[in-house]
Amino acid sequence: MKIGIVGGTGDIGEGMALRLSPNYDVIVGSREETKAIATCDLCRASLEERDLACSLLGVTNQRAVDEADVVVLAIPFKHVAPTLKALTGFEEKIVISPVNPIERTTYFYYAPPPEGSAAMMIRGMLPPGTVVCAAFNNVAANRWQMLDEALDYSVAVCCDDEGAKRTVMELVNSVSSLRAYDAGPLRAASLVESVTPLLLNIARFNKLRDVGLKFV
Amino acid sequence: MKIGIVGGTGDIGEGMALRLSPNYDVIVGSREETKAIATCDLCRASLEERDLACSLLGVTNQRAVDEADVVVLAIPFKHVAPTLKALTGFEEKIVISPVNPIERTTYFYYAPPPEGSAAMMIRGMLPPGTVVCAAFNNVAANRWQMLDEALDYSVAVCCDDEGAKRTVMELVNSVSSLRAYDAGPLRAASLVESVTPLLLNIARFNKLRDVGLKFV
Repeated sequence: MKIGIVGGTGDIGEGMALRLSPNYDVIVGSREETKAIATCDLCRASLEERDLACSLLGVTNQRAVDEADVVVLAIPFKHVAPTLKALTGFEEKIVISPVNPIERTTYFYYAPPPEGSAAMMIRGMLPPGTVVCAAFNNVAANRWQMLDEALDYSVAVCCDDEGAKRTVMELVNSVSSLRAYDAGPLRAASLVESVTPLLLNIARFNKLRDVGLKFV
Repeated sequence: MKIGIVGGTGDIGEGMALRLSPNYDVIVGSREETKAIATCDLCRASLEERDLACSLLGVTNQRAVDEADVVVLAIPFKHVAPTLKALTGFEEKIVISPVNPIERTTYFYYAPPPEGSAAMMIRGMLPPGTVVCAAFNNVAANRWQMLDEALDYSVAVCCDDEGAKRTVMELVNSVSSLRAYDAGPLRAASLVESVTPLLLNIARFNKLRDVGLKFV
């Protein structure tokens, strides 16, 4: 299975490339192909240091979509609409949204678009035949790149297609100590996305770092 | 410190009475005093079986408010407005809202009132000088009464008064293995309340029972 990462040169995108490329063919996309190639070189070096083989290819965002079976949108919420408008070819692909619409004053809060969640907005922007899954939303962003630390979190997955949901849950379970949970249909993704500002508030007000969650 | 429980004869109210009365003076309120007295008798028997001393008094909801320093609203969201309209005397008290406005179709979703959360609605209904804290929202309801099982969960606390927040966090930390976290101002309580329908979905779609959460 080929995983394309749109926005693969950002913190989360690069971290996902590191964590996924030992097990999957990972295609790192960027608006600038040279940046994607540089990220892949860095990831490869990091993995080789740990004697881990990997499969990584740095390309444009469009080619990352074209070549992938599963596309991860590793981009901030505010970049989602312009990025998706510039890309084509999502038909028959599984698109994973780890995107959280968050704003901040003296605390972090959930600021979803009119569709109710980033995931529902993304589904509305993509062509029919694309399956959107919300997943990885609550994994502490900084932790993806800390290869020597386990990612020991629960991951809620929302999707309306049962087959795609199983595929994404297997993908989640293949990463470090992440554990996937079925969190229902895509409409329920707002409940998952809104956990992230809660975790940011917990970190902020309790002077903690990289707070994640586990269902127990 | 005296803890009054409005709605103290429901599942959560009775469970809280069981868990709090060994450490605090607990005043169990009900619309019908006889029911409150019966609940206290049951709790006392349950605790005596385990050689635990307790302080329990069964009274009306109004008297539970009048006699308490801290009032817990252990009532379903739909009963909050009519219950609060019938009660007086909240001035200078700390009011804890574990209330979650949830609705259900094929999945559970968050259905907050126009104020943004149950906690903010409750603050708007109570007189000035009352301090409202959101706490205990995500503790699996059935677990409160299972005295022989630890409550090993994280509890997010939202409040605008730092002193009251500390008091409530200490109260939380006194119960079984619960651990309190400062989750920011009361306006952020929607993020805490909306975790509960997520946990109900996780339980439902993964065939689990009594799912709670831990911040890690």
